[in-house]
Amino acid sequence: MTETNLDAFRSRYQARVENTLEQLLPSTSVEPARLHEALRYTVLGGGKRIRPLLTYAAGEALAIDPELLDRPACAVELIHAYSLIHDDLPAMDDDDLRRGQPTCHRAYDEATAILAGDALQTIAFQALAEAPGLSAASRVGMVAALARASGSRGMVGGQALDLAAEGEGTQLDVAMLEHIHIHKTGALIRASVQMALLARSDATDDQRERLDRYAKCIGLAFQIQDDVLDVEGDTALIGKTAGRDQVLEKATYPSLVGLAQAKAMARELTDEALSAISIFGARAAALTAIAEGLSTRRS
Amino acid sequence: MTETNLDAFRSRYQARVENTLEQLLPSTSVEPARLHEALRYTVLGGGKRIRPLLTYAAGEALAIDPELLDRPACAVELIHAYSLIHDDLPAMDDDDLRRGQPTCHRAYDEATAILAGDALQTIAFQALAEAPGLSAASRVGMVAALARASGSRGMVGGQALDLAAEGEGTQLDVAMLEHIHIHKTGALIRASVQMALLARSDATDDQRERLDRYAKCIGLAFQIQDDVLDVEGDTALIGKTAGRDQVLEKATYPSLVGLAQAKAMARELTDEALSAISIFGARAAALTAIAEGLSTRRS
Repeated sequence: MTETNLDAFRSRYQARVENTLEQLLPSTSVEPARLHEALRYTVLGGGKRIRPLLTYAAGEALAIDPELLDRPACAVELIHAYSLIHDDLPAMDDDDLRRGQPTCHRAYDEATAILAGDALQTIAFQALAEAPGLSAASRVGMVAALARASGSRGMVGGQALDLAAEGEGTQLDVAMLEHIHIHKTGALIRASVQMALLARSDATDDQRERLDRYAKCIGLAFQIQDDVLDVEGDTALIGKTAGRDQVLEKATYPSLVGLAQAKAMARELTDEALSAISIFGARAAALTAIAEGLSTRRS
Repeated sequence: MTETNLDAFRSRYQARVENTLEQLLPSTSVEPARLHEALRYTVLGGGKRIRPLLTYAAGEALAIDPELLDRPACAVELIHAYSLIHDDLPAMDDDDLRRGQPTCHRAYDEATAILAGDALQTIAFQALAEAPGLSAASRVGMVAALARASGSRGMVGGQALDLAAEGEGTQLDVAMLEHIHIHKTGALIRASVQMALLARSDATDDQRERLDRYAKCIGLAFQIQDDVLDVEGDTALIGKTAGRDQVLEKATYPSLVGLAQAKAMARELTDEALSAISIFGARAAALTAIAEGLSTRRS
């Protein structure tokens, strides 16, 4: 595997992310120890950290000191982590594996997994509220933005729509599939970029609009690529069973429009994302690396 | 039943609470409709509203315009509501009834109940972040305080400790029982009072310390009274099955220290609470009504 620009960018920020997450999670020497173990098991157990990387990358475009973005970047990751724990529960997607490891309720138990997800959401908002170096206005704006993105009209709403569509055996069309993805995963990816914008009160409307367009496009491209990898991918690489969507007869981009067309859609969205951030010139290198890296990823 | 001062105080604020909660919850005409129905079913389905009332009562002591406290008061109630939904789940306390009505997962389904709880937590923080009339510093302070009270070292931690104690069949002593209650219910009751303190940046240290002591005492008294009602109460009035704690062999104050001693403890705590707020004079009438009302309640 050749190192991509995304790998290089990741290696520059990975330590910041892991250290910040480590600091934000209570130690296992603090009671309730088992709950805190479950938090650390889930959050510190790896992950691509795409969302925090997006915050730092948007921060580079806007020339923001990365230290100011440590908490905001990781707050989004904590919301993502909580959603994975709850989505994996037996009453939801009933998954046993996540990143090749037992899911939280498998490694611990269901009650602990429910509480661990609940606690991670709380830590996310606390991390924003107490983020050092940022004005109270920035922090409160971040809390509001992250809440809007993750609530019943954002991420949680997307999961509810997804479950409802599966439960009713609804024949999804592309518009409905996109609607679900925009909520279930897209909202949080947009929030990652918004965190950087909210750290800079002097960002122009044009910068805001372009960064948001970038985030919308790569969010959807990311999801299409996920579906493509389920068809083409290698179980060992992607950390979950390849072909699972087909077995579950899940509506995916490849199943609805065909594999070639799905790949073309991901490519177009990536191009649109890159075009949106062209005004940032060299400062958009990290955002470019993420967009390119996501659209060519194998896992 | 004679009307108590608490009833009179409640009737003054009840409409504010219900209206604010109604406004904070998305309409059922907004997708995902079923999720939003579940939120409204759970939150607008009644409840004593003790936590919001405490915020307004502390607000009266500090001469705060109640309008400023609408969002903070209801944010705490939303956290409480989310915790009830999750605590009632089959993997946790497995309760079918709450306030005499089917619990959320019984009225809907488990997945919806998990997501409804998640969404309510999010709405709580969003409500604080976007609370009108308060400075950004106040709002961000409230987010931090509510997060600390409700997270893994507060309410969620208390629930984890409670489940662990039950699961292991641990023989609890009074100190451990108190430790659980201080986290599981006490932290959020203290947060209710803190919301008012955070709306007034000029509150003195003495006022802060006294209001916090009041909140700590009535939080514990409330819990002891809950245990007493499980022994003495009327199933129809308390809205859950009386005697359930005994059937489950749960450690309670009456089971550990006897009924008479439990009642005496509740009385002492109430007296300490009243003594703490004496400095507020006539402005403490509402806080007094709550403390007295909780210790003499029949449901």
